[in-house]
Amino acid sequence: MTGCQRLSMESRASPSPSLGGLPCCVAFSQLLGLTVVAVTGAWLGLYRGGIAWESALQFNVHSLCMVIGLVFLQGDALLVYRVFRNEAKRTTKVLHGLLHGFAFIIALVGLVAVFDYHRKKGYTDLYSLHSWCGILVFTLYFVQWLVGFSFFLFPGASFSLRSRYRPQHIFFGASIFLLSVGTALLGLKEALLFKLGAKYSTFEPEGVLANVLGLLLAGFALVVLYILTRADWKRPPQAEEQALSMDFKTLTEGDSPGSQ
Amino acid sequence: MTGCQRLSMESRASPSPSLGGLPCCVAFSQLLGLTVVAVTGAWLGLYRGGIAWESALQFNVHSLCMVIGLVFLQGDALLVYRVFRNEAKRTTKVLHGLLHGFAFIIALVGLVAVFDYHRKKGYTDLYSLHSWCGILVFTLYFVQWLVGFSFFLFPGASFSLRSRYRPQHIFFGASIFLLSVGTALLGLKEALLFKLGAKYSTFEPEGVLANVLGLLLAGFALVVLYILTRADWKRPPQAEEQALSMDFKTLTEGDSPGSQ
Repeated sequence: MTGCQRLSMESRASPSPSLGGLPCCVAFSQLLGLTVVAVTGAWLGLYRGGIAWESALQFNVHSLCMVIGLVFLQGDALLVYRVFRNEAKRTTKVLHGLLHGFAFIIALVGLVAVFDYHRKKGYTDLYSLHSWCGILVFTLYFVQWLVGFSFFLFPGASFSLRSRYRPQHIFFGASIFLLSVGTALLGLKEALLFKLGAKYSTFEPEGVLANVLGLLLAGFALVVLYILTRADWKRPPQAEEQALSMDFKTLTEGDSPGSQ
Repeated sequence: MTGCQRLSMESRASPSPSLGGLPCCVAFSQLLGLTVVAVTGAWLGLYRGGIAWESALQFNVHSLCMVIGLVFLQGDALLVYRVFRNEAKRTTKVLHGLLHGFAFIIALVGLVAVFDYHRKKGYTDLYSLHSWCGILVFTLYFVQWLVGFSFFLFPGASFSLRSRYRPQHIFFGASIFLLSVGTALLGLKEALLFKLGAKYSTFEPEGVLANVLGLLLAGFALVVLYILTRADWKRPPQAEEQALSMDFKTLTEGDSPGSQ
């Protein structure tokens, strides 16, 4: 081992002094995320009659499932590599995949709820910007999960292929999450305007609560994005990953896979 | 100079082989951005009677100014450090600041237009989620510009203070841009639902065009974000910045400022 290699490994292994803010930020993100779910529940309970799989209440299943699945759980799945930074890579990968899978199933229930509700009421499907964005997000989320599973969990993809796909997977993951939050905001606005109409401008309590919910949704998205993009909070490569990376580097002269 | 330093400087100075995609992506972002402005103009011209500083047409000044200022120009200002990667740092800084300043003035005209229009019509101000997000974005944009100017263009902030603030400036810049696009989408949806109402579900040409505009807005935001976050497209430190960084490192044992 040369002096440069030793120096490089020592500097990578040393803990970052600015990691102290990470637990606070993660706690804040969870507080925001849970508040988003609670305020959505309160809005649906107080002003929309609650939740059921029949009558007009079926539509509310759509709103709640999408906020839990495609906002809260999807956001948390993105944070797994920052929160469990010292666990074995395989454990965090499985947890990341499971959380996304769980989020997808809940979102699927939300999707079925709105199509079933439209069918029973004889409403037109897929005419609004919210629905166009929603179908796009749902399809991209499914494709991203499948491709991510094939590359990172299914044993088959080569080491260099994984390391080349990883940055794309991270970028598209964050983008799909942002699109999901944007789509939720459009849906919230649509639900408000269809029901309140001109009364929206009289500061009706429902309108004010929904506006607060919109700001909370945007706030949750930005806090998750902050934790995800802060360079010194990225997961450090584990000792065995570094060794593996260096072995492959010697063999292939390719890039080090880095960390997710 | 030690062997490690020489090796490190050589590897930083060598051009990245994957830079080839940058011009294509920048060209695509500009095509998308100009299409967004053109489609907004077409929508306002074809279905909203065009633009003027009087009558109902004053509202349309708001929509066009916000799309040009807080979407297209703001997005382009974020790309300055990627596009002019080999220009002197000071030149790119001034261009970045000027583009943001220009975007801010256009957005200010858009803001005055909507408040003046509301006053003339006797409409309530600031009741909707779109307006709450809009005021938040506009305030944050102004504060970010002022703080950015004080730290990076006004001579006074210390070298280590600049290097510590830089990552926050980049994160908040990208976040304000994303919030701007989200706010534009909410405004578009509001304008559509207020005018079309139930006719929105009959696939009216205006509704379809506005949905396409919404997807284009989201697409522009994601392409700008992709260019901005791709690690190997970040601006390389110039030779004189590296030398300066090493001098300061020796003097202060602080962090190297890196590149923006």
